[in-house]
Amino acid sequence: AEKKPGFTTYKCMRYPKAEMLKRSRELHQFMERRRTVREFSDKEVPYEVIEHIVMTASTAPSGAHKQPWSFCVVSDPALKHQIREAAEKEEYENYHGRMSEEWLEDLQPFGTDWEKPFLDVAPYLIVVFKKPYDLVDGVQKKNYYVNESVGLAAGFLLSAIHNAGLVAVTHTPSPMNFLQKILGRPENERPFLLIPVGYPADVVHIPDLERKPKEEVLFHYAAPKD
Amino acid sequence: AEKKPGFTTYKCMRYPKAEMLKRSRELHQFMERRRTVREFSDKEVPYEVIEHIVMTASTAPSGAHKQPWSFCVVSDPALKHQIREAAEKEEYENYHGRMSEEWLEDLQPFGTDWEKPFLDVAPYLIVVFKKPYDLVDGVQKKNYYVNESVGLAAGFLLSAIHNAGLVAVTHTPSPMNFLQKILGRPENERPFLLIPVGYPADVVHIPDLERKPKEEVLFHYAAPKD
Ligand SMILES: N[C@@H](Cc1ccc(O)c(I)c1)C(=O)O
Ligand SMILES: N[C@@H](Cc1ccc(O)c(I)c1)C(=O)O
Repeated sequence: AEKKPGFTTYKCMRYPKAEMLKRSRELHQFMERRRTVREFSDKEVPYEVIEHIVMTASTAPSGAHKQPWSFCVVSDPALKHQIREAAEKEEYENYHGRMSEEWLEDLQPFGTDWEKPFLDVAPYLIVVFKKPYDLVDGVQKKNYYVNESVGLAAGFLLSAIHNAGLVAVTHTPSPMNFLQKILGRPENERPFLLIPVGYPADVVHIPDLERKPKEEVLFHYAAPKD
Repeated sequence: AEKKPGFTTYKCMRYPKAEMLKRSRELHQFMERRRTVREFSDKEVPYEVIEHIVMTASTAPSGAHKQPWSFCVVSDPALKHQIREAAEKEEYENYHGRMSEEWLEDLQPFGTDWEKPFLDVAPYLIVVFKKPYDLVDGVQKKNYYVNESVGLAAGFLLSAIHNAGLVAVTHTPSPMNFLQKILGRPENERPFLLIPVGYPADVVHIPDLERKPKEEVLFHYAAPKD
């Protein structure tokens, strides 16, 4: 194999077939146990755990490796409360006229309303920002596939939260521009998701929902003779 | 705690603090080892592994739990080749005029061009589709936060691929509508990402890139006295 300048060789993990199967089955089972949680304990979580979770998210691939994201971790109770107030103001409007009848109906099973106590209770709010462009010496440099890239990173983030035995809710107060203002973020950052993270409350209620079975989400295009 | 109809209680994982720290550190280290790979082996991968990977992706949360995605797993060599031909046709145009100078420059480190042999070589192509709406008895029912939701699911997918010791490239031939046609997907599905999956080639070359350090992606808003 020729040696290409600017390249290196990659040594990846390799598992025997039986172990690969076991690993994939066990991760699947483990991830099936994840659920969105809206009832948190205020119990402290070591900041180091949050750092590992965020830096796991930041290993995601991205268009032209631009890593067009930033993660703001809010543990300051005063700031969390400010975020709660602003989010509830928007949500109040959403639940009182801005969301369509169809939308409100679709939310029935979740029992959600405009009140968001979890924004005070959860020890950390992770605000995921996307960067449509970077600012390099004041000049705008376009990023690529920004929504896809930041979505992948947020997926890594949620996996890492579950892996740590913590819970989260993927919250989208809308519009959520207030996050940019409250956190004083630069003009090239747009809020993507607001993710409270912590231990679950002693008793957590989750809606009785199921996931779609394989037949509804996986379609195999095999060779005719397979 | 009151018993709410339509709800159930959630028993989640709980780890002692030291174990939580260890788990989060180890996952972080494990995920740091993931890299995008464009050189595949044609070695067979058990289909059952792919099923677990896809069903892991499908555990992602989504707006109003609509699960607005489908995963098409292509192992048929004839179909893979058709996809390769169509992708290369678009990529040829991209690399010969459709991409800006700035974009081409940003891609220099990856050494990519219009040729996509991995679309033939990788044993599986997973095409992730998003569904802006569902079709219920021929009526359009809007989905919510579709890009965010499908991005999260694709993040779960890439984590699960790495967990199995397999490699992938997050490919976005553009425009990629041809995927909808070749696979005969319903009108409410739009291609989101095309992800070849398999074992790496015996020698894999990856660009000498680094990830952004913590200071550039993680911003802690702690209480003044913290
Ligand atoms: N779609 C082209 C070009 C390309 C490649 C990598 C990348 O991160 C980005 I943004 C674009 C191709 O696949 O070659
Ligand atoms: N943003 C509101 C409403 C809401 C809630 C859940 C959900 O999946 C969707 I789509 C919307 C809220 O957070 O209550």
